[in-house]
Amino acid sequence: MKWISVDAMGGDVGPEVTVQPCVDFLHEHEHIGIVLTGQEDLIRAQFGERASSVLNRLRIHPTTETVSMDELPSSALRYKKDSSMRVALNLLKAKEVQATVSAGNTGALMAISKYVLKTVPGISRPAILTRMPNLAGGVTRVLDLGANVDSSPEQLVQFAVMGSIVAQTVGEIERPRVSLLNVGQEEIKGNIQIKKAAELLAGLDTINYIGFVEGDGWFSGETDVVACDGLVGNIALKAVEGISSLIMQRLVGSFKRNVFSQASGLLAKPVLKKFKETTDPRSYNGATLVGLNGVVIKSHGSADQFAFKNALNEANLEIEKQVPEQIAAHIGHLMPCDGN
Amino acid sequence: MKWISVDAMGGDVGPEVTVQPCVDFLHEHEHIGIVLTGQEDLIRAQFGERASSVLNRLRIHPTTETVSMDELPSSALRYKKDSSMRVALNLLKAKEVQATVSAGNTGALMAISKYVLKTVPGISRPAILTRMPNLAGGVTRVLDLGANVDSSPEQLVQFAVMGSIVAQTVGEIERPRVSLLNVGQEEIKGNIQIKKAAELLAGLDTINYIGFVEGDGWFSGETDVVACDGLVGNIALKAVEGISSLIMQRLVGSFKRNVFSQASGLLAKPVLKKFKETTDPRSYNGATLVGLNGVVIKSHGSADQFAFKNALNEANLEIEKQVPEQIAAHIGHLMPCDGN
Repeated sequence: MKWISVDAMGGDVGPEVTVQPCVDFLHEHEHIGIVLTGQEDLIRAQFGERASSVLNRLRIHPTTETVSMDELPSSALRYKKDSSMRVALNLLKAKEVQATVSAGNTGALMAISKYVLKTVPGISRPAILTRMPNLAGGVTRVLDLGANVDSSPEQLVQFAVMGSIVAQTVGEIERPRVSLLNVGQEEIKGNIQIKKAAELLAGLDTINYIGFVEGDGWFSGETDVVACDGLVGNIALKAVEGISSLIMQRLVGSFKRNVFSQASGLLAKPVLKKFKETTDPRSYNGATLVGLNGVVIKSHGSADQFAFKNALNEANLEIEKQVPEQIAAHIGHLMPCDGN
Repeated sequence: MKWISVDAMGGDVGPEVTVQPCVDFLHEHEHIGIVLTGQEDLIRAQFGERASSVLNRLRIHPTTETVSMDELPSSALRYKKDSSMRVALNLLKAKEVQATVSAGNTGALMAISKYVLKTVPGISRPAILTRMPNLAGGVTRVLDLGANVDSSPEQLVQFAVMGSIVAQTVGEIERPRVSLLNVGQEEIKGNIQIKKAAELLAGLDTINYIGFVEGDGWFSGETDVVACDGLVGNIALKAVEGISSLIMQRLVGSFKRNVFSQASGLLAKPVLKKFKETTDPRSYNGATLVGLNGVVIKSHGSADQFAFKNALNEANLEIEKQVPEQIAAHIGHLMPCDGN
C-alpha cells in the first residue's frame, strides 16, 4: 500500500479542482491511498457520492493555513508552518506518504520542499523537470524550468545527469540522448556557464551527452533530455504557452469567420477535438521537482480536473520507479565529484 | 530615389530565392532601386522576363566571395572582404544605398555590420529586433533575439529604449508600453542584470516602462516592446518555432488520419489555408539590426520568395521612417547617460 499527500488548497481554484481527481484516481488504483491536506469542510464538500466507496483510502489531514499563489516563497517558508502545502511535505518527510502533489505557488513549493526534504547528496539545488511532446512522437524531458537562475556549470551538469536518470527509469529509454540548451550548435556559442558545462559533460562517459541543441530541440525529437538554466527554461516555456494560445485562438477564429467556414468547422469539429487532444498540454501536466529526497509533483496552477489527475498519475509512476532513490544511487557513479 | 543593397547570395538557397522578390518589389515601388551583390551569372540567370522593364533600377555589383551559413563570424569579418554580404554593407556605409537586406549568416552579418557601419553614439551593441503577432491583433516587438549574450543592465536598457523608438516610429504607437522579459512579474524575480535594468528603466520618465513580463508576454498583447538578453530571446524564439511546427504537423495529421476526417479536411482546407496565413511566420520575416548607423534587415535563412519580399518591405519602411536617424536623435534625450 502506497500513499500520496495532496495539497488540496493549492492552485488557482483549490478543492473544487483537486479533490474529485483524487476520488477518481483511487477508483482506478486499488493499492494507493491519498491524504488531502487543507481546510476540512471545504475538502469534504467536494467528496461527492463516488467517494463513499474509497473512504478507507481517502483521508483528510486538516490544516489552518494556505500559501497563496502570489506569496513570497521566503515568507511562506517562514510563517506558514501549518499550511496545506507544508503539511503535505511534512507527511512525505515522515514517510507517511511516498509522494506529494501540489498545484500551489511554485516558488514556495520549491523552497519548502528543499527545506523539509533536503536534496539528494551530490545535488546542490533541485530542478523543475517536465515532458514535452516531440515531432518523433515521443517526449523530451526538459529541466530546469524555473527553480534556479544563474545556474553554475556544475548545476547544469547535475540537471543533465538527473534528466538522464529520469528518462532512463521513468521514460524507459536505455541510453537517453542528453543535450545542453544553447543559441547555436557550434562549440564557440553561448555564455561561459554553458560552455564550461559542455566541457564537463563531454568528460563524463557514463551519460550519453550529444552536445548543444537550440530552442526547437525541445520539440524536434533529436534529444531525450535538455538541460538549461531555470531563467531561460521558464521564459521559453511561457513563450511556448503563449504562441500555443495564439495559434488555438486563430484556428478557432478561422472556423467561425463566415458561414462556409462555420459549416466546414462543424464537420471538422471531431477532428479538431482529436487534434487538441494530441497537443493538449493538460496531458503533460505534472512537473517533477527532481533532486529532492522524495517525489514531489507540481501541477500547473490553472490545471483543471483532467490535468490534475495526470499529475497524480505522474506521482504514482515516480513512486513505482523510485526516482529519488535512483538519483541517489546513480549520482555518485555518474558524476566525477559532488559538484558543489 | 532610394536604393537598397541586397546580398543576393545569402540564405540557405541564394539567388533562386533572393532575386525574383527584388524584381517584384521594383514593379510595386517606382522610386526605389536595388543593387544585388554576388556572383553575376548566377544572379542574372534568375532575372526572368519581368526584370526587363525595371532594369534601369536593378543593378548587379559583382563580388567574388560568399559567406557560408556556418562560417565563423570572426573569420567572415577578417577574410571575406569581397563577399556579397560585406560589399552590400560597404554600399550602405558609402551612402550609395539607404538599406541592406541579407538572408545570410546572422552572426557574420552582425559582426560585419558593426565593423563597417559602427553603432549609433550611446549604443554599445546592436540588437536583433523582430515582430510577433499578438492576441490583441497587433504586433509586439522583441529584442535582442541573439546578437548578444550576457547583456549588461545598461545594454538591456538600450534595447528597451531602441525598441520603444522603433515601435513609435515604424509601429506608429504613440506611447509604446515597454517591458523587460523575466521569470515572473514580481520585483524580486530574475537575475541581477534584469533587476538592475528594471531599476534604471523605472528612473527614465521619457519612456513608458510597465515592468516585467513573462515569456507569454510576447504574444499576449499586454506590451508593445519586450527587451531581453539575446541568449534568452534566441532560445525562446527557437522554442516557439519548434512548437509551431509540432502543432502544424499534428493539425495536418489529424485531418489525414481517416476517411471521415479526410472528407472534412477537404472542406476545411480553405479555412485552414486562411488560418495558416494569419499565423504565417513568413509575414513577419525581416528582423531589424537596430543600433547601427544604417538600416540593416536580416531575412530568415530559410525564407522563401514570399518571405524575402517582406524583408524588402521592412527595409523600405525603415528607410521611410528613418529609424537609425530617429534612434540617434532620441537616444541622448531618452537615456540618462550613454550607457557605456
